[in-house]
Amino acid sequence: MTQKDVKTKILNVGAELVHRQGFNNTGIQEILKVADIPKGSFYFYFQNKEDFGLQLVEHFDCHFQEITGKVLSEMDISPLRRIRNLFGFFHEYFEAQGFVQGCPIGNLAQEMGDLSQAFGEKLSKSIDNMAKPLATVIKEAQEGGSLKLKTDPYDLAFFIISSWHGALVRMKVSKSREPLDLFETMIFDQLMS
Amino acid sequence: MTQKDVKTKILNVGAELVHRQGFNNTGIQEILKVADIPKGSFYFYFQNKEDFGLQLVEHFDCHFQEITGKVLSEMDISPLRRIRNLFGFFHEYFEAQGFVQGCPIGNLAQEMGDLSQAFGEKLSKSIDNMAKPLATVIKEAQEGGSLKLKTDPYDLAFFIISSWHGALVRMKVSKSREPLDLFETMIFDQLMS
Repeated sequence: MTQKDVKTKILNVGAELVHRQGFNNTGIQEILKVADIPKGSFYFYFQNKEDFGLQLVEHFDCHFQEITGKVLSEMDISPLRRIRNLFGFFHEYFEAQGFVQGCPIGNLAQEMGDLSQAFGEKLSKSIDNMAKPLATVIKEAQEGGSLKLKTDPYDLAFFIISSWHGALVRMKVSKSREPLDLFETMIFDQLMS
Repeated sequence: MTQKDVKTKILNVGAELVHRQGFNNTGIQEILKVADIPKGSFYFYFQNKEDFGLQLVEHFDCHFQEITGKVLSEMDISPLRRIRNLFGFFHEYFEAQGFVQGCPIGNLAQEMGDLSQAFGEKLSKSIDNMAKPLATVIKEAQEGGSLKLKTDPYDLAFFIISSWHGALVRMKVSKSREPLDLFETMIFDQLMS
């Protein structure tokens, strides 16, 4: 494996473990063991666990941007339907997984927001990055007349993302699709109808 | 101190530490040290750390019910205003604290929902307990005609709580009142206006 491959493997395995069990609850040694990478090499790629965590946020961010970019740019589909499809995509993902884990960015924001300023700032930017493409499509829907709600597109995008994060929190304890269905009904059929 | 006092002290100190830094990130020894209680006595009051955590959920639940019961039962205030006042109360609390910590029940749901079935079930019930008094006041507003939205009172209560939990997640990383202001605008001025 090249150095880049090793780093990517550490990040991929780390992403999976941290998403499943939390950042503080996941040890570096555990990640290296699962990734089958010699212990000593971690500090060749990362300064410390926090540096690893910050790069993990970028890793999750990229993954989210990739999916969002794809779903929201299908221009033959109406803007409101594209937004529904985006959350529908994640809804299906969570259903297939058995309603576990939730959004890795939301999880880390909750877990690390108070514990590390660097984490907090990185995660805040990451949520901004989530809102940006969503706000663009909301604006498109407003300008095209399909969305009557005149709320600022960024505000609406942030509200939708936060409501989704909260729905995922309840999904994790109810282990059911009900919070996600309710999110969709309230956001799309009530607020944005 | 009586046995009950000692147990209450462990729970109070534990509540503060877990609220500030998370459940997995807080050790039993740390709690006992801060509470100034001999190490050995923890297992006299709690079977293990999970049992302690489950009793902590009840502790948070009671605290929340106490505040909610007080604010939502001020019958000389209109039902919609009472609901606003409830979130206004918590908003002021977070503002005074510097926008940290968030909802202890929401935090534990996110952190422990997948890691322990007992935690998940307890936290799910705890969120139900949050929704119950809120749904009662929503129904009162619907029946009195001040709330036009015909959504099922429980559904609306759950949506409000989840949106609030999500707003608190973003508050923790933005370290600002903006997500809470946006929650209030979207829920009270848009959805329930």
